[in-house]
Amino acid sequence: MTVDPPTAAPDTGSLSHARSLVLVHTGDGKGKSTAAMGVALRALARGWRVLVVQFVKSGDWRAGEQEMLQRLGADWLAVGDGFSWDSGDLEASAGLAREAWNSAEAALAGGTHDVVVLDEVTYPMTWGWIDTDTVVAAIVGRDDRVSVVATGRDAPSGLVDVAHTVTEMRNVKHAFDAGILAKRGIDY
Amino acid sequence: MTVDPPTAAPDTGSLSHARSLVLVHTGDGKGKSTAAMGVALRALARGWRVLVVQFVKSGDWRAGEQEMLQRLGADWLAVGDGFSWDSGDLEASAGLAREAWNSAEAALAGGTHDVVVLDEVTYPMTWGWIDTDTVVAAIVGRDDRVSVVATGRDAPSGLVDVAHTVTEMRNVKHAFDAGILAKRGIDY
Repeated sequence: MTVDPPTAAPDTGSLSHARSLVLVHTGDGKGKSTAAMGVALRALARGWRVLVVQFVKSGDWRAGEQEMLQRLGADWLAVGDGFSWDSGDLEASAGLAREAWNSAEAALAGGTHDVVVLDEVTYPMTWGWIDTDTVVAAIVGRDDRVSVVATGRDAPSGLVDVAHTVTEMRNVKHAFDAGILAKRGIDY
Repeated sequence: MTVDPPTAAPDTGSLSHARSLVLVHTGDGKGKSTAAMGVALRALARGWRVLVVQFVKSGDWRAGEQEMLQRLGADWLAVGDGFSWDSGDLEASAGLAREAWNSAEAALAGGTHDVVVLDEVTYPMTWGWIDTDTVVAAIVGRDDRVSVVATGRDAPSGLVDVAHTVTEMRNVKHAFDAGILAKRGIDY
């Protein structure tokens, strides 16, 4: 009979309490960003200060979470219009991604928030718009009270290496494969 | 260059809009319930009615999400005290699980909510406390406006079969493996 997670603390002989954690949600399945929003929700419930930096323009995609989490006190920084994988102007998009990264970097170093969500940050890393080594160094060198949740497919190995917890969301079966469109309110 | 999910609707030639969806979050990794809470958050943002039925007693585990989601309008039903995998009284625990299931079943059939989260429902199914075929039948026969999110390890194949979307949260790396205790506000 297995239960996850255990409600009782296990033997703590060789265990330590981290001051903060780095979580990565990767893989091709659903739930990477959604679970990050759930972590943000939980942190807000604890009275923590939360910053979400959204690296890929979502249109309405994240608007609901944004509204709800902001109502609960989260700060939210989304890349501007024009930052999109289908933008005609990649240079402008790259610039906006770097701008978002600069804000994230400042939050990581400054300890202004207890949790910083780097939502879909792996894409601009993959596309070479922001430098992976720089991101990894900023995470390692962060104010040690700041926990980080980074999401997106194809998490670079450098990021995986410095994370405490890495979860791969694996697509076992998807409604879309069966010819069903994403449903508003559930999928976005 | 891949992005998930696409912000523009793809060709809809052979696609249909489902009236509601059945999502399953399974696997041994983190984020199953957390992503379900994120779905609930998104649905609330759309003004939908949300019911969370929590099948495994969590102590403080879900208290934060519960408080936040209830504040945003969700209904929440948690199994009573005594329902726990470490309870000395398995028969009482099984009874409470069945009671929670009866409420969930009524919500699925009655269409009282747009989204019903069956949180950690796979455990009482695995333990034989609630009948898998009954759960699957209730999901299939639900009011077709009701979307369902079912979470927990070892989702039975019958449940997977009737789901539109199944995501396996796979544990790639866990802080606990490195001797770091779960961190309040992040992990629970």
